[in-house]
Amino acid sequence: MRAGDLCSPFPSVRMDTPAIEAARLLAGQDLPGLVVVDARDKPVTVLPGTQVLRLAVPQYIQDDPALARVVDEAHADQFLAELADRTVRELLPEQPRELPVVDGNATVLEVAALMARSRSPLVAVVARNGVLDGVITLDALLDRMLGT
Amino acid sequence: MRAGDLCSPFPSVRMDTPAIEAARLLAGQDLPGLVVVDARDKPVTVLPGTQVLRLAVPQYIQDDPALARVVDEAHADQFLAELADRTVRELLPEQPRELPVVDGNATVLEVAALMARSRSPLVAVVARNGVLDGVITLDALLDRMLGT
Repeated sequence: MRAGDLCSPFPSVRMDTPAIEAARLLAGQDLPGLVVVDARDKPVTVLPGTQVLRLAVPQYIQDDPALARVVDEAHADQFLAELADRTVRELLPEQPRELPVVDGNATVLEVAALMARSRSPLVAVVARNGVLDGVITLDALLDRMLGT
Repeated sequence: MRAGDLCSPFPSVRMDTPAIEAARLLAGQDLPGLVVVDARDKPVTVLPGTQVLRLAVPQYIQDDPALARVVDEAHADQFLAELADRTVRELLPEQPRELPVVDGNATVLEVAALMARSRSPLVAVVARNGVLDGVITLDALLDRMLGT
């Protein structure tokens, strides 16, 4: 069993993908994050799922969460409008996470080691030319290891 | 819409829960992590999903992932045996993650701010007496915010 056998097709996004599209991909498919690829479909980084929320939350509330308690519910509904004008580039953390990436020949143990070390529930699998082939999620890996 | 309306029942584990049981809960329900509670059901920390893999991977391979490439597949199958003898306590990271926790009156915006800041796709909701009521996952929150 190698990474190539374990990986599944996975929606990727680009730096200029609308943020709202990224949020819908995450929500619609229960994904832990999205792989961001360049114009040649080579993975460049991972957008952690939680980071799409950053744009939804005004900076002064991120700094002082207590203020969120007194902000009107309607404010939260501006989330969609906020995301509509932004791109994936603006969602990425300032310190981008190292991309956990393996080739199709990686062993199950190799993938498990990478996931444990990088704490990423998402590992990108690339073809020989560096193009994204698919991903292995923590869930797929556990299913394989536990035989469920 | 408040945290109490958004939260769902969620399997919790304790420090002495067998590691294999935690792994099965994660795999069987596609969870991003597990809330660890004390004897009085008060949440104490979160076990990130990726950390159940730590026990599956010998330390020398975590240090030098290249070695995983040459380790026989059968070795990976010792995962189950390894987990059987361990507990959740041994899976927890050395620097435990701050537990993202809110009460049932927290607003959607408050939960979003906490998730974005803590980068946790899992927020615990507690009752007035501090007992775990349920959790809000990133996915549930996005579904609510996007109206999907």
